[in-house]
Amino acid sequence: MRTQVAIIGAGPAGLLLGQLLFKAGIDNIIVERQSGDYVLGRIRAGVLEQVTMDLLARAGVDARAKAEGLPHEGIELLFKGARHRIDMHGLTGGKQVTVYGQTEVTRDLMEARSAEGLATIYSAANVSLHDFDSRRPRVRYEKDGQTHEIECDFIAGCDGYHGVSRASVPADAIQTYEKVYPFGWLGVLADVPPVSHELIYANTERGFALCSMRSAHRSRYYVQVPADERVQNWSDEAFWDELRARLDPEARERLVTGPSLEKSIAPLRSFVAEPMRFGALFLAGDAAHIVPPTGAKGLNLATADVGYLSRAFEIFYGEKSASALDRYSDLCLRRVWKAERFSWWFTSLMHRFPETGAFGQKIQEAELDYLVHSHAASTALAENYVGLPLEDF
Amino acid sequence: MRTQVAIIGAGPAGLLLGQLLFKAGIDNIIVERQSGDYVLGRIRAGVLEQVTMDLLARAGVDARAKAEGLPHEGIELLFKGARHRIDMHGLTGGKQVTVYGQTEVTRDLMEARSAEGLATIYSAANVSLHDFDSRRPRVRYEKDGQTHEIECDFIAGCDGYHGVSRASVPADAIQTYEKVYPFGWLGVLADVPPVSHELIYANTERGFALCSMRSAHRSRYYVQVPADERVQNWSDEAFWDELRARLDPEARERLVTGPSLEKSIAPLRSFVAEPMRFGALFLAGDAAHIVPPTGAKGLNLATADVGYLSRAFEIFYGEKSASALDRYSDLCLRRVWKAERFSWWFTSLMHRFPETGAFGQKIQEAELDYLVHSHAASTALAENYVGLPLEDF
Repeated sequence: MRTQVAIIGAGPAGLLLGQLLFKAGIDNIIVERQSGDYVLGRIRAGVLEQVTMDLLARAGVDARAKAEGLPHEGIELLFKGARHRIDMHGLTGGKQVTVYGQTEVTRDLMEARSAEGLATIYSAANVSLHDFDSRRPRVRYEKDGQTHEIECDFIAGCDGYHGVSRASVPADAIQTYEKVYPFGWLGVLADVPPVSHELIYANTERGFALCSMRSAHRSRYYVQVPADERVQNWSDEAFWDELRARLDPEARERLVTGPSLEKSIAPLRSFVAEPMRFGALFLAGDAAHIVPPTGAKGLNLATADVGYLSRAFEIFYGEKSASALDRYSDLCLRRVWKAERFSWWFTSLMHRFPETGAFGQKIQEAELDYLVHSHAASTALAENYVGLPLEDF
Repeated sequence: MRTQVAIIGAGPAGLLLGQLLFKAGIDNIIVERQSGDYVLGRIRAGVLEQVTMDLLARAGVDARAKAEGLPHEGIELLFKGARHRIDMHGLTGGKQVTVYGQTEVTRDLMEARSAEGLATIYSAANVSLHDFDSRRPRVRYEKDGQTHEIECDFIAGCDGYHGVSRASVPADAIQTYEKVYPFGWLGVLADVPPVSHELIYANTERGFALCSMRSAHRSRYYVQVPADERVQNWSDEAFWDELRARLDPEARERLVTGPSLEKSIAPLRSFVAEPMRFGALFLAGDAAHIVPPTGAKGLNLATADVGYLSRAFEIFYGEKSASALDRYSDLCLRRVWKAERFSWWFTSLMHRFPETGAFGQKIQEAELDYLVHSHAASTALAENYVGLPLEDF
């Protein structure tokens, strides 16, 4: 087989890249280790920046996100028993985010790809990347007992943190930065109406909590738990009791509970690999960077990478210029580090850290007090939350 | 002796309080452990917020500060070899700070007090505070071999971190919060023209540096050194070499060096004692809180406390109401904690910490990059630097 761009991973980043390249007339094949059903079964993020919505529009797959997604113009910060609204729309001159589940984004992209008859190889075993330091890179995999090879111009590594793409780079060619947080998020998905029409981020003596949603009928709630906590210790009832204890009286009263559709604990980690390009191999999304979920930047960073990368391929094939591909890594990383900083800051502000002493606790309270009463500080939060703009090549 | 308010400490906080009370017709005596010359010899801060300038005006001692002080409308942040100006004036709707040495503020206040013939007892030994939990508080001290006693309505503790005022409060009545930083500032005062007409805050691989000034002819420079460094290890030449190495090429070329008038190492510490009122005893300034000098908030917090306190005494004597005195501690502490947060944040942003790993270093760089390019984030810095407004009682 031969293609222009071999894409590793059929998550939202790989699928979106495939669709954007298809729209630009660039041939691509996606190779995915898992089955399509497995990919769709992963419960992930659900807050889309305008940048992400614009890219879905460019890819021609925004119809359902626009029709069914919930536009959110603000978030609420809850601390010391009171909620304070951050008017993102007003503070950013009209920007907003859209609540629409990552699972739905993935489904829309899969269906669009399938409708165009584009090649996606699911359940590809032992995927390996070859000769991406040459002009003839290749991707090899096994399927149905046979070994297959794809010859290509470029490889896009969209296969996540544990994927083969970053692991294929020689260790001395890559620098990694990491921070592991001393807690995780215990999350529950349930078919109950959300406690509020906007997200509530709560900093309480019992720890962080987040009231989120996937739709008007499906809620997603989280509570901060120690890093070594086990999900088996948490009955649905225990979860709802703990969440309720972290809410303000009004929200406590409004909370509707129900059986969990999914319940799991996610660790919190910050991670960046530099650079994001190695010869003909380009990393995008979780393959290159992880953010803690506070601030909802993970999926949005992945789509932004793919936005840059698809544009760089267009320039390469359309204008016969490698200049954009050469700038890809720097341009991505500059925005990635700002999102890493924001996610680290928002995580630090909203969680209780076991190592924080009395002084640090008072500083956190002073910062929350300052943040919600300062127009400038609220605007800085809002402009990061709705997403910093993409730069031009 | 008898007075309405006994003020402990003849630094700028105590002297300003005395002058404000005098203007309001409230009788006061200042008791100071040191001599007047010793107080004047202390080299301290030199950046005055508008709030401080307004209080000096209310006290009738702003003539020289207005005539000789240097209005500053911006500061410069230097990192990665380039300077970025924060236009404080433009970002805050016309606010500024005034560069005017604390020594000069103290001198102006001393002269005004002396001209009015108000009582200041210098070189008072073994000062002690008594019965401030009663309606008849007293201050005792020794001078010229004799013990003296002042009866008063209230005691104002303006005698700094090491003073007797806070130390007189029972340990179980006070809560303290502290953070000690793993570095100090090696400072040099020299009669040379400043390298730039605005302050330069530098974050470099060799550590923090600050180019400040006291006037157009007197410069004040600092470099970050380890907490256990000794000033004896630093010749003037070694200091200038180190400072030069932390500047950008243009500043390096412009730097004029000369013999040091003063050279010392100051530790960096954050400290807050709560509450700030104990019966008839009110703490103000360094007696209640310390900030690291990054951001120049120490003197300004002290004058703000004194502004609140003088107003509360005016309301007490003028309107026969203790309500403002009752709110003094809460009102001060709310603003104090915001300044503590700002000073901690600006210190964290601009210094190199020995414990910062590779991830933290990249986060610091990303924050600087974001800060100077975001209007909102620059405004948040500017509004804190020029000083948050005082609240009404």
